[in-house]
Amino acid sequence: MTIPIWQLLVLLLIAAVFILGRITGFRMIKRLLVGRPLKTRELSQAQHHLVWYLALPILSADLYSSVAYGPEAGATELVGLGPGAEWLILPIVGATVLLLLIIVLSYIMGILAYPNGGGGYSIARDNFKSPWISLVAASALMIDYVLTVAVSVSAGILAVASAYPVLVPDETVLSVICVGLIALVNLRGVSESATLFSWPNFLFAACMLFLIGWGVANDVTHGFVQPQTPPFGVLPKGFTLLLILKAFSSACSSLTGIETISNAVPIFREPRQKGAIKAYVTMTIVTGITLVGIGYQLYAKGITVKLNNTMLSQLTSVYFGHGPIYQIITWSTFLVLIIAANSTFTGFPQLMALVARDRFLPEALSLRGDRLGFSNGLMVLALLSSLLLVVFQAQTNALIPLFAIGVFMSFTIAQVGMMRRWMKLRTKRWKAKAFINAVGAIVTALVTLVFSATKFAQGAWIVIAAIPLMVTVALLIHRHYVRLARELALDVQKEPATEHHVISLLLLSDVDRIALQSVSFAKSIAQDLIAVYIGFDDESIEKVEAKWAAWGEPCRLLAFKNEYRSVLQPLTRLVDRLQTREGREPDHIHILLPQLVPSVWWQFMLHNQRNFVIQAWFLRNQDVVVSTIPYHIRDH
Amino acid sequence: MTIPIWQLLVLLLIAAVFILGRITGFRMIKRLLVGRPLKTRELSQAQHHLVWYLALPILSADLYSSVAYGPEAGATELVGLGPGAEWLILPIVGATVLLLLIIVLSYIMGILAYPNGGGGYSIARDNFKSPWISLVAASALMIDYVLTVAVSVSAGILAVASAYPVLVPDETVLSVICVGLIALVNLRGVSESATLFSWPNFLFAACMLFLIGWGVANDVTHGFVQPQTPPFGVLPKGFTLLLILKAFSSACSSLTGIETISNAVPIFREPRQKGAIKAYVTMTIVTGITLVGIGYQLYAKGITVKLNNTMLSQLTSVYFGHGPIYQIITWSTFLVLIIAANSTFTGFPQLMALVARDRFLPEALSLRGDRLGFSNGLMVLALLSSLLLVVFQAQTNALIPLFAIGVFMSFTIAQVGMMRRWMKLRTKRWKAKAFINAVGAIVTALVTLVFSATKFAQGAWIVIAAIPLMVTVALLIHRHYVRLARELALDVQKEPATEHHVISLLLLSDVDRIALQSVSFAKSIAQDLIAVYIGFDDESIEKVEAKWAAWGEPCRLLAFKNEYRSVLQPLTRLVDRLQTREGREPDHIHILLPQLVPSVWWQFMLHNQRNFVIQAWFLRNQDVVVSTIPYHIRDH
Repeated sequence: MTIPIWQLLVLLLIAAVFILGRITGFRMIKRLLVGRPLKTRELSQAQHHLVWYLALPILSADLYSSVAYGPEAGATELVGLGPGAEWLILPIVGATVLLLLIIVLSYIMGILAYPNGGGGYSIARDNFKSPWISLVAASALMIDYVLTVAVSVSAGILAVASAYPVLVPDETVLSVICVGLIALVNLRGVSESATLFSWPNFLFAACMLFLIGWGVANDVTHGFVQPQTPPFGVLPKGFTLLLILKAFSSACSSLTGIETISNAVPIFREPRQKGAIKAYVTMTIVTGITLVGIGYQLYAKGITVKLNNTMLSQLTSVYFGHGPIYQIITWSTFLVLIIAANSTFTGFPQLMALVARDRFLPEALSLRGDRLGFSNGLMVLALLSSLLLVVFQAQTNALIPLFAIGVFMSFTIAQVGMMRRWMKLRTKRWKAKAFINAVGAIVTALVTLVFSATKFAQGAWIVIAAIPLMVTVALLIHRHYVRLARELALDVQKEPATEHHVISLLLLSDVDRIALQSVSFAKSIAQDLIAVYIGFDDESIEKVEAKWAAWGEPCRLLAFKNEYRSVLQPLTRLVDRLQTREGREPDHIHILLPQLVPSVWWQFMLHNQRNFVIQAWFLRNQDVVVSTIPYHIRDH
Repeated sequence: MTIPIWQLLVLLLIAAVFILGRITGFRMIKRLLVGRPLKTRELSQAQHHLVWYLALPILSADLYSSVAYGPEAGATELVGLGPGAEWLILPIVGATVLLLLIIVLSYIMGILAYPNGGGGYSIARDNFKSPWISLVAASALMIDYVLTVAVSVSAGILAVASAYPVLVPDETVLSVICVGLIALVNLRGVSESATLFSWPNFLFAACMLFLIGWGVANDVTHGFVQPQTPPFGVLPKGFTLLLILKAFSSACSSLTGIETISNAVPIFREPRQKGAIKAYVTMTIVTGITLVGIGYQLYAKGITVKLNNTMLSQLTSVYFGHGPIYQIITWSTFLVLIIAANSTFTGFPQLMALVARDRFLPEALSLRGDRLGFSNGLMVLALLSSLLLVVFQAQTNALIPLFAIGVFMSFTIAQVGMMRRWMKLRTKRWKAKAFINAVGAIVTALVTLVFSATKFAQGAWIVIAAIPLMVTVALLIHRHYVRLARELALDVQKEPATEHHVISLLLLSDVDRIALQSVSFAKSIAQDLIAVYIGFDDESIEKVEAKWAAWGEPCRLLAFKNEYRSVLQPLTRLVDRLQTREGREPDHIHILLPQLVPSVWWQFMLHNQRNFVIQAWFLRNQDVVVSTIPYHIRDH
């Protein structure tokens, strides 16, 4: 019987939090972890406007970090074909960069149209009448946000585990811990940390460009074709179109996160649109160079896919062994991937809040928490992505087939929406703009189709099945809210508040100080008070009746026996009888329940919990109000 | 990602129960599984008095079934000494049978003294002044009841897994499922099943005697020393006293369950005591013959300890291969062990109820459930034994070191108690009786000491550490109940119920039909009503105030803004202010919370759950009563 070290650590942590909570109060713990609550008006104060080159690293982490796993995801699909297929990584990376250019161009159109920022959901809602199209976009995006967290965190942990193989068996646990920490940071609020987060991205980009530069210098010195370089240009045996499409669609996982800048236009300093476009252009150039450069280096050095050692880690160690440069590259990869996951923790709750404000999701998701973040949505994201990590045991390559479909689906919807917009508004140069978006729509639609078809059996079916389900649930929720609003509307002119006839029932368990407290309260508010005692044997009933009489009968007492040792059942029957009594039935029944409140938490277990059951039970009855009258046991 | 078949089955089962529950109502499911509730007076009707030879198989299952694992547990300790030590099983079994005789004799004394049945707890409570001695007995017994379930079920599953090795990896899951089923049967109530349960025990005893007889016949035919018989009489290398004591104390796990008959004297037909003594004598003779017989056969046929194949299974297959006789023996072993676990499900809850009635355990454990069983205690037993099975992965031999200490400890306490009793009463032949109990006390005390010392590191320390902990908790619980009873005592002459000044606060979220319903109710019962609206922005506050005015101000409205988007905080402050207002503070504050009740369960998630938080929060305030006024959404 051995307990893994992680489980023990987690148990110890929980115990520590609990003990600290008992001593200082749980409110203190929450304050310590999350910080003091913030006022609503602090929201606008917290928003700084950033010059574009400072906003760039924050907003590009999501896209740029995926160069760490995208090319490898593509190469993984080709492993079966042997070393003769390794050169195929080059055309695949080329096609990916081309796709990047097309999508960025159409997103720049989006910025021109929506200077206040607009993701796939907002654009779709704006340009399509029926809500289901925008809900498809929203569902697809939400699924991909969850996957972004899972893929980025697992890839980040894999980067570290490549350097320290001892961590391999604990990848799942470490990933979930990472998600937990990211969620905690975000519960505190992100505004303070934004600039802090930009440095690792700078560092990672510098590392990648340095690595590529070093590789090219090496090529120049030792020749572009080296002994370990695999053959080029010959289609390997077993090559099929399906296979290369599969590899391409896996490599396209590098393209998730393009939409981040277009959602965040409002955080740029004026002129906003210009700044955002500059950021887009710079990001595209750097990402394009990196993708091509890394793709070429992986090919030239004959790096192959290995379990638990990323291609990037292998490439780095070819040049630098496991020395300090390798360490810097490893940890900057880890950091940038974690920051990519972190940026999702802003996007996902905001999207959920937007959809919830349109009443397609529970309203709790549209409320800001203590620290002004949408804490409920944030916790939903943390839970779902942890679940994915556990189910897929933090294997990046197992998650890739589910990934990116959602993004491309929402790309397509947004592009079509933009196209419709240009065709409707017919502003300056609308034809050129509509053309660009049409090309974008067609390309992304094709990519979506290729994804769904080639990855269907590997996991894409989950996403394709989930989207209609999510849309249906959203529509059901919407219907509920709309109907409820209609039902609750009050005509203040015609429907005045009136007084009722109320019968109050006070449930006694003995004639003691609890009874003194509750009878006194009940007499003060009741029009028509009956004390009820339900005994399980004749003896106890006689005792209570005698005591009641000796006490001077403060009100009428109804004592009866229940043979089934149940309080709920006879009480229900009594209420039913009162409510259906002919002639003078009351408008309301008021049930009063004395509740013993111990001074120490564990003493709660020593007392009957039936009040909770009674309260939950009578929620079913329209005209029954249940009150609990606390009686506090003195501290002893 | 493979999901084990058992997990899938369990998930499917839960889903089926849930769907069935949604369709027919969960009450129906409970009825289906547990049966209709029974009236209190059906309790006495259900108790049949049994003639001794019918009571015997029911009451002896616990003791007799342990011959299936006791000798093997002893042999397991000697494995390290090699085949030269195998003959030591014979003196060990001999000593065990001797101990059995001594203990039975002292239990017969117990029956003479307590014709209404008395376990270790009752005898100790009766003969010792300070409660901690009887609590030690009770704790020791409770621990052993839990272990009986775990050991019996795991041994039963091992018996089956010996025949079907494919089941070995699933032993833990199967054991927990068995415990669940036994618990379910017991939730239904056991009276109906008692006679049904006696047959497997008859069958098992017949099988064992048949096996021994066949073995002896074989010995007579082929000679008592056969080729496979290990050497006899020579002390093997590495032999130590500690080792043989260890083996002996493991073998003593065959002796658990002796106390069952003495607890159950009231179920015998008159003359009770005579019947119980007859049952004791018969049980002792049969168990003694079986232990000696099986022990000798195991030695004579050179059976050794093997993982996942019990010695009993090996012995049986020596004679009968894996044919029908082997199957009958296997399944009757399984059944009798399950029935032994089952009998514990009567004893443990009864003991807990007894202790709870003395106010040393939560009172909920002393209440009879729908089917008249002590269902809470029953579920405690099921949970704890499942936990043990999971932690020890259903390995019988890993559980043995924890087992039997408790029983022998409570034996000792009971014997000393009996001794004190005889010395106090000085009835006829008191000296002889006291002598017998004194011998019993000394022997069982020695055995307890040997157990604790030899098995300490292997797990006995858990039991030895748990007992003082349990006693301390029991004493704390008792103190709480005693002090509470003193605090709650009411002097009916001097403390009449009086009326209070109550301020009612009605929390509104809008002026709508919910407000109509709740204001109407509140006006009917309140002396002094204030409607409270807490908004998060100025806009919503102005809107509500305007609507309220248009509605004709049914009562005073207090509308204010909270910058922290919290309702609880400003409400708490308001209550504090009202309670500490100088001059005319109220005796009570009555908070009224309108509660939206959807017609479909999932819609609960679409609405704010803050009422639950507010209710839980104000339980802290002595003089604040919280009521929820349900508003039922029409079915749509």
